[in-house]
Formats: sequence, structure tokens, C-alpha cells
Amino acid sequence: MNPFEILAVDSKSRARRGRLLTSHGPVETPVFMPVGTQATIKALSPDEVHALGARIILGNTYHLSLRPGAQRIARLGGLHAFMAWPGAILTDSGGFQVFSLATIRTIDEDGVTFQSHIDGSRHRITPESCIEIQELLGSDIAMCFDECTPYPVTRDYAKASMERTVRWARRCRNAHTREDQLLFAIVQGGVFPDLRRACVEALTAMDFPGYAVGSLAVGEPKEVMLDVLETVVPDLPHDKPRYLMGVGMPEDLVEGVWRGIDMFDCVVPTRNARNGMVFTSRGALQIKHSRYADDPEPIEAACTCYTCRTFSRAYLRHLFMAKELLVYRLLSLHNLHYFLTLMESIRDAVMRGSFEEFRRQFYARRCVEEPIAD
Amino acid sequence: MNPFEILAVDSKSRARRGRLLTSHGPVETPVFMPVGTQATIKALSPDEVHALGARIILGNTYHLSLRPGAQRIARLGGLHAFMAWPGAILTDSGGFQVFSLATIRTIDEDGVTFQSHIDGSRHRITPESCIEIQELLGSDIAMCFDECTPYPVTRDYAKASMERTVRWARRCRNAHTREDQLLFAIVQGGVFPDLRRACVEALTAMDFPGYAVGSLAVGEPKEVMLDVLETVVPDLPHDKPRYLMGVGMPEDLVEGVWRGIDMFDCVVPTRNARNGMVFTSRGALQIKHSRYADDPEPIEAACTCYTCRTFSRAYLRHLFMAKELLVYRLLSLHNLHYFLTLMESIRDAVMRGSFEEFRRQFYARRCVEEPIAD
Repeated sequence: MNPFEILAVDSKSRARRGRLLTSHGPVETPVFMPVGTQATIKALSPDEVHALGARIILGNTYHLSLRPGAQRIARLGGLHAFMAWPGAILTDSGGFQVFSLATIRTIDEDGVTFQSHIDGSRHRITPESCIEIQELLGSDIAMCFDECTPYPVTRDYAKASMERTVRWARRCRNAHTREDQLLFAIVQGGVFPDLRRACVEALTAMDFPGYAVGSLAVGEPKEVMLDVLETVVPDLPHDKPRYLMGVGMPEDLVEGVWRGIDMFDCVVPTRNARNGMVFTSRGALQIKHSRYADDPEPIEAACTCYTCRTFSRAYLRHLFMAKELLVYRLLSLHNLHYFLTLMESIRDAVMRGSFEEFRRQFYARRCVEEPIAD
Repeated sequence: MNPFEILAVDSKSRARRGRLLTSHGPVETPVFMPVGTQATIKALSPDEVHALGARIILGNTYHLSLRPGAQRIARLGGLHAFMAWPGAILTDSGGFQVFSLATIRTIDEDGVTFQSHIDGSRHRITPESCIEIQELLGSDIAMCFDECTPYPVTRDYAKASMERTVRWARRCRNAHTREDQLLFAIVQGGVFPDLRRACVEALTAMDFPGYAVGSLAVGEPKEVMLDVLETVVPDLPHDKPRYLMGVGMPEDLVEGVWRGIDMFDCVVPTRNARNGMVFTSRGALQIKHSRYADDPEPIEAACTCYTCRTFSRAYLRHLFMAKELLVYRLLSLHNLHYFLTLMESIRDAVMRGSFEEFRRQFYARRCVEEPIAD
């Protein structure tokens, strides 16, 4: 039975309103997944994240397998129990981190050998061990082991890498045993339309319950990313969820949904919060700016999050200047609230058939005099 | 009218069960006041601290006057509104920080000149400006400006400093205007019984609504601290609250109450939490210890705090090793819960006339094989 159900489709775009059934409850799509790299959404407690409306989060296979270790997490009852997260979890393949964080790595047909960025210890991941790790973690959605290629990349390299990723996807599918865990494939092929199409064709022939678009948001211009979506999405099966990995800024979410994406994840709301950048419907602001030193207003007057209901910009700026731990939490809370509320509004708009109007207003609200990050 | 009411006295010790009425509600004593140095209890939100049962916290005059500034806090509605704290606040005099943190300082009869530890800027505090700052902050309890002498200190210096502190107390009393704010005096005199007694006599003649014992917990042996309490407390007026500043460890709270102390404050629960040390009824433990790497138990099985209800030692150790922000909050929450629950149990025991038995059991529980900090 297909765990993904489409509840509405937009008439003006490829946007869809859907519902993905996981072993830890339904996930309403389009959805933004907060990133919990090391078994925690940085600075937030799981009950806070759940209260914000998140029903699915992302965990990082690479990080968790190095520390505290997948076997250990399995002994402690799996990732959900370990971090006390009641909702669904998607684990990535670790491919992105192996290629971006590991200090030394060598790739061969069978897998990747690399050194830990934590202690330099030597590790090897193969498609089979990647699946084993994710089964030990017990995530609701696992990802096939893939190579995330950089931007720019030569056509030859992108082709060889994509073909290997396809072979790895087949091995992942064969290795995968948990029936309570969905296994998604990842479309590669860099910025080359024919490679992307060939990858989609090979992967969809294997009939996965969901498909991600990989190697985007790795430094390419925004138009290039959107072009790849225009190429890939129409070839993906209509009835399966589509996941744009590592994306993005609020406008990327709107544009991704417009082009038919159902799932997103990104560190932006939490990482930027820790750097003092907060999102509002009018744009982003830097809380450390001296203009907020005496500002009695909340980050955004209409926002209903705990931070905006309780504290002034002046107080948040004070905490940030004093490097007080509370501020990282309060700003993360606000930013995640902004992202999750944005997705909720997008879902409502698609459901009501007013997504085009929503998108227009989304941009119109941003064209104002202040505040803009500086 | 005396805002302090004594509800019960212990027959075996000097312990009392009382209630102090403040402009922000009643405070049940004996009480432990969490420290909110920079207008935040580090890593915790004010609603969390309140939910833990805290009804009074401490703010640091020195820190707040340097950053973000007392005038600014006053413009933003006072310290309660600024930090969204619904309970009572006691502000210290700044004396301790001027003498421990400021890089250069010179003391004269009129006040103290010092350089900020933040940016080296030059500042001056007099008894009058100290009161002005605390009135701007709008705390419920203000402290007279005092000199906190170190340990050891010569008798000559302790005498001159104590006599100056008495003269400053008179000036503070004369400068103080807010009727919604109680002004407490601070007993000085080092470890010299006759100086302490002379100070008590001079200060009580001015009839303050409360008295603190200062210059303790500054490095002297525990017995010396307890000896000073044995000297000072019997001479303090029975019907006024007694505050032991900057103390302390759980056993210090028990011994302080035993000797007639009503109020305590200390950074220990929150600071030690950030260093990975957590308190239990059996002693303290270091969460980073490798013995907890696979430990599925909470910090303390009988503890009802969110941290213990939700997370294993193994998870907390993982967060600590990974330097995840959430751990500082979870351990601070547990430690503050431990301190506030300890004080609640002490209040119950004094009220029921069983404080001697409580004290015996408090030590008996600690004489066990594990866990002890190492």
C-alpha cells in the first residue's frame, strides 16, 4: 500500500497537498523537517519542537554513527527513544557529510573510506552498512547511500558518480529489511538534464516509496537549482513524495513547492538563529544591530511564538551581546516557528486552491522598508 | 508593617519556617534564590524557572548596570518586565563583583572607582548611586552597598572595612526612596567575632527589614563559615529575614538553615550543570564519565524534573560530549529542581518539627557506594 496520499493538487503549479503515513504518525505535506544532526534540534527540547507543530525531523547518519554510535543507540531503544522524539524521523544517507566533513576520503565501487572529523579515526561506509546503520537507528524514512557531487562538477564525473549512485541504490534496496521503515532513493546527475533524467528513469524502475533530489543547494545559482527541479520533478512518479535535500531559505520553500516538492530540510532556521539572524514575514533581521538596543517590540508583532509573546528585541539583543545561552534557544524557537508556520500556510493555500495568490503575497510582504538583515 | 512572618520555629535548632511578603508575591522561607546574573537564569527560560517553583531570583547590579544599563532597563519597564520574570527579584549591591571582577579598583570613603571587566571603561559606584541603580532596576529587595573582604584578611583591614560598610549602610538607607522595595543591610567583619558583633549592633540600630551575612564562602574553611553564623545569627533580630550571600552546596543549605538562615543564593546549581556536574540525593555525579555511556537510567530515578522524566544518562552524556546546547539547559533544570525541592523539603520538615530527623536522613542518604563525582 502506498503510504503517500495526495489530498489536493494546485491548478496553477505543480504544488500538491499530501499526507505521508510513517510508523510514527502521519506527516502533512509539503513539510519542512527541522534538522537534528546529533540527536537534538540544536538548543531546543523535543517537547518544544513538537509543540511548534513539527511531526518529522531529520537525523544525520554520519554524525550519529560516529558519536554516540548506531549500535549504542539501538541498545538504548533506537533514535526515537534515545532523543525522546515522539514524531517521525528521516535519516540521511551520510553521503553529504562524508563528502563535506570527513578529512580524507577515498571512493571506490564498493563504498567510501574516510577519517572522522571528530578524532581522525578510520571508517568505511558501503551501501549495505549505510542501510544497517539506519536500521539500527530505526528511522521512519531511510535514504539510499549516494555520492553528493559538488558544484561545479564535470559532466564525466557527474555521469560516473550518478551511475554508481544508481548501482548503490539497488544494493541499498536489496539490503533493506525493516518493514516499518521507508527507503527513499536520491536522484543525482549534477546540473546536466540528460543525466538527471537517466537517473530518474533508472531509480523509478526500482519503484521506491519516495525520491529525493540530491546535490542541490551546494553552491549553484538559484536559477540552476530551479532548472534542475523543472527537469526532474515532471519525470518523477506523481504518487510518490519528492524531497529536496538541504533546502532552504523561505523563498526556496515557496519555489520548491511551486515546482512540486513535498519535503524539505535545512539547518538555516536553527543555525542562523545561533548567529543572531531571525526571520519575519517582511524579511530577516540581525538582532545584534544597535537599532534594537531600546526596541520594546517583539521580533514580529503578529508572531505567536513564545519568544515573540514574551520578550522584546531589546532583551533578545542584550542576551545576544552577552552571549547568554537562552538567546540561542529563543531565536531558534522563533525561526522554527516561522518556517513551520510558513509551511502550514502553504499547505492551507494549496488545499484551498489559492497558492498562486499566497505566493504573490509572500513576496509583496517582503517589499517593505524595514527590517532587512544588514 | 513587618513584611516577614515566622510560621514555625524548630525546637532543636535555630531553623525557622517563614514567609516574606514582596511587591511580587510571597516568598516561603527558608528559600534558595537562583542567580540570574545578566537578566537570565543561564540556559533557562523564566517560565521554566517559575514552573520549578522558584518565586524569587537574584539579579546582579554590577553586571546589569554595565550591560545593558540600569537606565535602559528602567525605560523598558524595569527588570521584571525586561526579563519577563513574574516573581520577586533581589538585587545584590554590586560590591562582591566590584571587588572580584573589576580589573582595577580604588576604594575611598565616598565609594569605589573601577574598570569594567567587559570593555575596560571607567565607572564609579557610591552608596547613593548603588541605590539609584537598584531603584531603576526595580527589584523587590535591594542590598546596601558594601565591601566584600577576602579570606584571609587582617583584623585591621576587616575593622576599617566593616566600619565603612556601616557608614555606607546609613547613606544607602538615607538615599533609598522606593516604598515597594525592601532594603537589606549586610553584616561584615571577616572572621572576627567582635567585629561581626559590632557590625550587627550598628546595623540593627538602624532597623533594616532584613540582614545579610557577607564575606563568607570566599575561600574560608567550612567550619569558619559556620562559626561566623553561630556568632552573628543569635544577635540578629528574630523577626527579620537573614540572608547568607553566595551560599552554597546542598549541605551548606541544610547547615545554614540549622543555624537560623532564611535565604540563600548561589551559582552552583547552574554553573556546575554547565560543567556537567549534577546533584542527586546520593551525591553529585559527572555526566561525562564513560560509565554513563550506555546507562539507560535517568540522573536520579525518583526525580520528577523534565530531564529525569524524559532522558537517560546515556543521552545526556552524549549531548555533553557533543557540546550540544540542550544539555546545559537540561542539567541546569535538573540541578535547580534539586535545590528548590531540597528547600521545599526543608520547609516541610521545619514546619512539621522534624528538621533534625530530616538533616540526619539527608546525610544518611549520601553515605552510599555510588554515584560520587570524580
